[in-house]
Amino acid sequence: MSKSAGREGVLFVVSAPSGAGKTSLCRELIDRFSDLRQSISFTTRQKRYGEQDSVDYHFVSQPVFQGMVDEGQLAEWAEVHGNMYGTSLEVLRQGAAEGIDLLLDIDCQGAAQLKKNYRQGVFIFILPPDLQELEKRLRGRDTDSEEVIRRRLQNAEQEISQAGWYDYLVVNDDFQIALEQLSAIVTAERNRASRNKALLDSFLAMENE
Amino acid sequence: MSKSAGREGVLFVVSAPSGAGKTSLCRELIDRFSDLRQSISFTTRQKRYGEQDSVDYHFVSQPVFQGMVDEGQLAEWAEVHGNMYGTSLEVLRQGAAEGIDLLLDIDCQGAAQLKKNYRQGVFIFILPPDLQELEKRLRGRDTDSEEVIRRRLQNAEQEISQAGWYDYLVVNDDFQIALEQLSAIVTAERNRASRNKALLDSFLAMENE
Repeated sequence: MSKSAGREGVLFVVSAPSGAGKTSLCRELIDRFSDLRQSISFTTRQKRYGEQDSVDYHFVSQPVFQGMVDEGQLAEWAEVHGNMYGTSLEVLRQGAAEGIDLLLDIDCQGAAQLKKNYRQGVFIFILPPDLQELEKRLRGRDTDSEEVIRRRLQNAEQEISQAGWYDYLVVNDDFQIALEQLSAIVTAERNRASRNKALLDSFLAMENE
Repeated sequence: MSKSAGREGVLFVVSAPSGAGKTSLCRELIDRFSDLRQSISFTTRQKRYGEQDSVDYHFVSQPVFQGMVDEGQLAEWAEVHGNMYGTSLEVLRQGAAEGIDLLLDIDCQGAAQLKKNYRQGVFIFILPPDLQELEKRLRGRDTDSEEVIRRRLQNAEQEISQAGWYDYLVVNDDFQIALEQLSAIVTAERNRASRNKALLDSFLAMENE
């Protein structure tokens, strides 16, 4: 697409069951597309050593976060282990207006909330090759107890059974193939006519100059 | 995507103003994707030397073609220089059911008819970088009269002004970039969740085996 044409920015939302390889795929995708940025969430949790405000998270107080919730400023939010995490609607809208593409790595519940509040997002679900392979990968990590692994597998099954509403499915069997498919989705969505209305206008304006 | 998952075949419909480079791009795309086939049209025109039935066209008589029109068997059809050309709905539906991806290179009017009769198609419009460059390319061919070039430019302008309904826009400024974008659209559309319903089902079936 022509850079001058004023394309709308795209929000790419990526979810996956634990162990499907989402984090590595998202990291590689950000590396590959210099103009694709990680979306930065708001959180009430304490800043950890080495973390930077507005880089890792926007760190805010509980009352500030609650104010954002009350005023409908969040496209999605959730409480995890007593801390709040959320995505600002304003940041998403501003990104779209400024032609900035954002990548948001988020769980299925968060993605479902976003789908309601920000329908123009592109929703991608990453799948393991099959559940046996997922179990193998979870065990291979060697960090989780049997109980945690069992729970993750049950969650995975439930998430997969509900993933039909996503726009795209990507199977992470071969990592490079999955990365190519994700990259293709980014490139294709940038070429969507609905995000490039200014491009057609620019042709006709040119003619009348 | 997993091959065993029984993905639905996709119809890719490509239109462009004359001189935008559609024919070369489609040829390269077919070369690149061994499993993407050119859609074969029905026609009443005489077979030319070297042409093969069911390879270049399905050659049929005027009464047979008219019968297809009358019975609503054509997803689009048009008369060009006294000959009829059309695309069979049945062929498209069969391709979708069998997981075969088809590429149809067709003018804007044909594409608009198809959009009405076969909405699940993926509609791509190829643009020249600008109208000045299009004029240069048309003159560079050195085969058309001034009158023909003028008419082509007027048509181009009209087609571009009406291209907003297409799913994707691809600017053919740098040929390789345009080809990458087209390829990305093919790959991304193959990953659409709506065409891969069997994939999610296969996960849950597996679990219950």
